[in-house]
Amino acid sequence: MRMYDLILKKRNGEELTKEEIDFIISGYVQGEIPDYQISTFLMAVYFRGMTKQEISNLTLSFVHSGDVVDLSSIEGIKVDKHSTGGVGDKISLIIIPLVASLGIPVAKMSGRGLGHTGGTIDKLESIEGFRTELDSSEFIHNVNTYKMAIVGQTANLTPADKKIYALRDVTATVDSIPLIASSIMSKKIASGSDAIVLDVKVGSGAFMKSIDDAEELARTMVDIGKSLNRKTIAVLTNMDQPLGHEVGNANEIKEVIDVLSNKGAEDETTIALTIASHMAVLGGAYNDFDSAFRVLKAKIENGEAINKFKEFIKIQGGNPEVVDHPELLPQAKHHIEIKASSSGYITSINAESIGISAMLLGAGRRTKEDKIDFAAGITLTKKIGDKVDVGETICVLHTNLENTNEAQNIAKEAFRISEEKPAPVKYVYKVIQ
Amino acid sequence: MRMYDLILKKRNGEELTKEEIDFIISGYVQGEIPDYQISTFLMAVYFRGMTKQEISNLTLSFVHSGDVVDLSSIEGIKVDKHSTGGVGDKISLIIIPLVASLGIPVAKMSGRGLGHTGGTIDKLESIEGFRTELDSSEFIHNVNTYKMAIVGQTANLTPADKKIYALRDVTATVDSIPLIASSIMSKKIASGSDAIVLDVKVGSGAFMKSIDDAEELARTMVDIGKSLNRKTIAVLTNMDQPLGHEVGNANEIKEVIDVLSNKGAEDETTIALTIASHMAVLGGAYNDFDSAFRVLKAKIENGEAINKFKEFIKIQGGNPEVVDHPELLPQAKHHIEIKASSSGYITSINAESIGISAMLLGAGRRTKEDKIDFAAGITLTKKIGDKVDVGETICVLHTNLENTNEAQNIAKEAFRISEEKPAPVKYVYKVIQ
Repeated sequence: MRMYDLILKKRNGEELTKEEIDFIISGYVQGEIPDYQISTFLMAVYFRGMTKQEISNLTLSFVHSGDVVDLSSIEGIKVDKHSTGGVGDKISLIIIPLVASLGIPVAKMSGRGLGHTGGTIDKLESIEGFRTELDSSEFIHNVNTYKMAIVGQTANLTPADKKIYALRDVTATVDSIPLIASSIMSKKIASGSDAIVLDVKVGSGAFMKSIDDAEELARTMVDIGKSLNRKTIAVLTNMDQPLGHEVGNANEIKEVIDVLSNKGAEDETTIALTIASHMAVLGGAYNDFDSAFRVLKAKIENGEAINKFKEFIKIQGGNPEVVDHPELLPQAKHHIEIKASSSGYITSINAESIGISAMLLGAGRRTKEDKIDFAAGITLTKKIGDKVDVGETICVLHTNLENTNEAQNIAKEAFRISEEKPAPVKYVYKVIQ
Repeated sequence: MRMYDLILKKRNGEELTKEEIDFIISGYVQGEIPDYQISTFLMAVYFRGMTKQEISNLTLSFVHSGDVVDLSSIEGIKVDKHSTGGVGDKISLIIIPLVASLGIPVAKMSGRGLGHTGGTIDKLESIEGFRTELDSSEFIHNVNTYKMAIVGQTANLTPADKKIYALRDVTATVDSIPLIASSIMSKKIASGSDAIVLDVKVGSGAFMKSIDDAEELARTMVDIGKSLNRKTIAVLTNMDQPLGHEVGNANEIKEVIDVLSNKGAEDETTIALTIASHMAVLGGAYNDFDSAFRVLKAKIENGEAINKFKEFIKIQGGNPEVVDHPELLPQAKHHIEIKASSSGYITSINAESIGISAMLLGAGRRTKEDKIDFAAGITLTKKIGDKVDVGETICVLHTNLENTNEAQNIAKEAFRISEEKPAPVKYVYKVIQ
């Protein structure tokens, strides 16, 4: 087999076999196939696409390029959840105690943030003492005992995908649905879960700008899951503005506490309950979505949810006092209010800009080596549809830095204000299964 | 400017500016842009194509990446000729004395053969003493005095094209018309000619299999020539079988002598006269093709053409006696007759197979380092349309090698024999100008 012939085959629109895809992926990981042949192949994939069978085989090839986590010693159906990436997206933190409170095991592996998107692990580390590096036995013990545990991605998961992603990133071949779908699904499958709920973000702040594109990605990922015997559901959710009111780390933890205490923003609460309810159904706790939703909503209202979160913090070594005293979370020195430059209604809030502004304030990493300031972030005091008067505060920047002109400008520019009241925002567009 | 953005721009189907194309080409030659970005870009070009303006700018960028030959000290309009590559293609050798005999300067730079296609320089070197490494002053002196000279490509012509071609060759991005056209035309323009006649081969033995594809390539090259102020004409000629009867080196020289002595094969003679006549018109010797054709045909019939070829050999240091005594050319030890396995009409002769068979006999190079055996080659005793009886000789292999089984099989397999007489072969399909 020669890589040249496989590039040609894909370029000419023919279907590659499992053996051919394995040859490409293992040859690249082992350094036998050079970057320039792989990148050319990826551009051919961009134009020609891949069949369902090819995408499924590519996913498997990624999975087998590294470690596969063995969760078989955890009882029950392990349901994982993945978001395609948003700003202010703290849904994972809300669903862990919610789903665990139903007795469904949540064995979560999460990553750190980069660029304008935050990472679940970073957010949790803003809680004093919270440990995200559990060894395998503690992780499994916690899931079996408390039905929940989270760990940073330490295993050597899907190294082939990592190597290929790095190449896609510099060759304008990132936005290819077969490549995105196989990349995401390979990580989920290597993480050992039995069922997966995908939160596919759509809108100005998401990778997928249109519902059609998001649906195609969702359908592709659901098909991969099914072909590899994982129950998979995708939920298309709104990312036309950041989720909730808080973007950062410590302030996002505060918002998680609000949601779980029945004081959360409507968008965040609705989407979290939706994802958690689908997980509850896939996990076998309920037969239908509506029943699961009702029960989970009640758990938020009756205090069970926030108590489970307190337990979650405690078993991972964090200080559970932050739940009742959020002022114990890291606090920034400066709080800069951004004012509306005109009166009217907020019609859009560019999520990517808010993410970049938060990063510039210290809440995110420009490069992998950067350190995060947990206290930094942005509070959106107004969201789409809110009425605002000129000079009124639309958001507050939290930072320990002195020079924040760029961050202020970007945050201010993120808001669009118009005289006309926009149509009400829909939080959940569609479920693909 | 970032290469990433330019890949994206081409991928999305937008037109690149001259500055952007220059950035890509000079960045690659200088080693500032890595192979994997260029190869990905080339695959995007394969799918998106290029506009006339882009192709013209790419050609210029190739031209300026290296030396540009200055032929200004040669009087008259310098007309060059290029073939897109065939098997048994000795047209260049026929047209040099023909066109020179009209007083039009022919300052020819030619290459060596590789793989199944031969090289004009190799063929000439089968003549004892023939020098293809003239210095610039001798080259120009010969053209001014005798109207003809040939030299191997020694100047550093279009190094960017060479580097990019090598990358295309291993990434399945060779057969893109904008890339083929700019590659060919950049070399012609860097060689310093004022006008160019392109012999675009079409058929089973050519790169372009269909007349439509060949016409698109021809049109693209003619447009480049016009946009850069070079009079350019393309002639689409048949390559459904090797040209003439001889494929090799010394035996091709013998066939050139035959053609110029009015004893040549009809296809070879017709195509050579056609190309030479277009060169005569572009060179200003005649106003119309028919007059040029008539005069050139007469020069073949009255002995002027072959005498001019004798002069050509002499001034380049070769032994002109080979013209009257072709037995002085290198002769092979073995002559293996390949017999027809059935009776009928020859309906096709796979030119690529004949080229490969000749290479295996010693007439060509597998790699650049291989040495050529000038005596090796193949004589086609039958051509398309010829009637043949079972057991009759269809071709003769000339070689100094002992083990020639593979070459014999390939040569034999190249012929198709059918009971039905095929339609007459057309030699010249179309002229694009």
